[in-house]
Amino acid sequence: MANFEPRNPDFAAVVRSSFDSQPFMAHIGASLVSVTPGACEISLDHRPELTQQHGFVHGGVVGAIIDSAMGYAAFSLAVPGSSVLTVEYKLNLVAPGDGDRLIARGEVARAGRTLIVSRGEVFAVKNGEETLCAVATQTAMILADRPDS
Amino acid sequence: MANFEPRNPDFAAVVRSSFDSQPFMAHIGASLVSVTPGACEISLDHRPELTQQHGFVHGGVVGAIIDSAMGYAAFSLAVPGSSVLTVEYKLNLVAPGDGDRLIARGEVARAGRTLIVSRGEVFAVKNGEETLCAVATQTAMILADRPDS
Amino acid sequence: MANFEPRNPDFAAVVRSSFDSQPFMAHIGASLVSVTPGACEISLDHRPELTQQHGFVHGGVVGAIIDSAMGYAAFSLAVPGSSVLTVEYKLNLVAPGDGDRLIARGEVARAGRTLIVSRGEVFAVKNGEETLCAVATQTAMILADRPDS
Amino acid sequence: MANFEPRNPDFAAVVRSSFDSQPFMAHIGASLVSVTPGACEISLDHRPELTQQHGFVHGGVVGAIIDSAMGYAAFSLAVPGSSVLTVEYKLNLVAPGDGDRLIARGEVARAGRTLIVSRGEVFAVKNGEETLCAVATQTAMILADRPDS
Repeated sequence: MANFEPRNPDFAAVVRSSFDSQPFMAHIGASLVSVTPGACEISLDHRPELTQQHGFVHGGVVGAIIDSAMGYAAFSLAVPGSSVLTVEYKLNLVAPGDGDRLIARGEVARAGRTLIVSRGEVFAVKNGEETLCAVATQTAMILADRPDS
Repeated sequence: MANFEPRNPDFAAVVRSSFDSQPFMAHIGASLVSVTPGACEISLDHRPELTQQHGFVHGGVVGAIIDSAMGYAAFSLAVPGSSVLTVEYKLNLVAPGDGDRLIARGEVARAGRTLIVSRGEVFAVKNGEETLCAVATQTAMILADRPDS
Repeated sequence: MANFEPRNPDFAAVVRSSFDSQPFMAHIGASLVSVTPGACEISLDHRPELTQQHGFVHGGVVGAIIDSAMGYAAFSLAVPGSSVLTVEYKLNLVAPGDGDRLIARGEVARAGRTLIVSRGEVFAVKNGEETLCAVATQTAMILADRPDS
Repeated sequence: MANFEPRNPDFAAVVRSSFDSQPFMAHIGASLVSVTPGACEISLDHRPELTQQHGFVHGGVVGAIIDSAMGYAAFSLAVPGSSVLTVEYKLNLVAPGDGDRLIARGEVARAGRTLIVSRGEVFAVKNGEETLCAVATQTAMILADRPDS
């Protein structure tokens, strides 16, 4: 994994504040576990209202939390006063989201001046054991002169 | 657009029943507008709890409804007694989900025996006018001997 | 399909000149069939040296020509004096590249100021009949102040 | 990285034989560096005929070698007598392919019975130093009853 220098000393506070201002993250019950320069982890407890017809967490929810984890990994490297936009994301669902909770980990692969490319993994945690359930990639764009809030 | 022959005469009822059994689609307030052989449309009213920090519908929600629309487009072509699994999806968010509601349209591009590849578009509807806000692709897998419910 | 206004009246000449300056396109024998505002078509004759172990055109070659077709569809909408860079592309190979030649068609879905998102399809032509063999998506970036050559 | 058990004791010979039977890999001058259970590395020397208009290796070539590296990573885990097909691949080009040679490394993330999902990275090697130039994901399908040659 690359070693990134944050361009904003307050990156952690800025990311947490942005996460807390997303109604949808609250609506599904996601929580921000950690943010470090170029990396972010989000946790989501299993809830019946988040499932598809077989009782597993819906693939769209898996996509939403890993999109957020990768987006905040990117945002942790942004300059002060900027915001970050998801350009695109792609995920492979490799196992059902079957567990007590899901953990989504996003990590920057390459931080350019305008675009940041990140990779992500989602794990289902069951009886304390993690099973890989999705791998993802995201391209995010830094809007240098548009604050996040 | 290709012209597809359904392999299950009851495809529409089967798709509707599957959609109705997905708690997450109800949780976000999505509704199934239509399903025809190889195509599916899902509608989602704008709700404050579905938004990100700027008041637009969260990209993860956009992904969830287009993943579902493409998955049900694929499922409309499945044989009786089978179910369909999302293998992967990818979306480009090309404009904010800004409107009274979103419409997600999925359409099968190629239906193989095991895998079905679909394309999708999401539009934001504002004052009756549609604006493209996402384009997507999905690979789905037919599980021939595993019923949907 | 959207109707695009070119921002460079000489877009066709600029695209052709750029295509002609790509040694790799010549190396595989690809030719530029047409370019219109927001769309581009590339043709590739079947050659033994372009194949994989089963005699079909290699998936990497299919990716190369559709990446180029989408990139030039994007470039047709760029301002004078700029160049275009592929940020990412994704393709689904839905049938073998089996035919006398392949046709790759790229089309812009959304042209922003910095990023252009395009979709593409590749067809294998055999006995005059086209079979879809790949669907693709691309994100391209306009480098406004960096000429193409 | 996961630890994979090969299902074919002769996996290395089978992968090398398949690679050697791909005319396109020879046409661009790619060579198979190594194959271990679930991983594969391919090397490509810089050649003028592989470039785009700025003298860097064409993005389509970068896609071709990482598609192959991921496909052979998947193939290393296949049962005897089977072959592997690329279902889809996606790559982000994060830096120009600028160097004396490129190295493409593919690695299986999850090996299912029918589908294998792999991740890949391409590095440009210049003066002995590696620079990340692409990240990729691939879905491959095992054709259990169709030999590779």
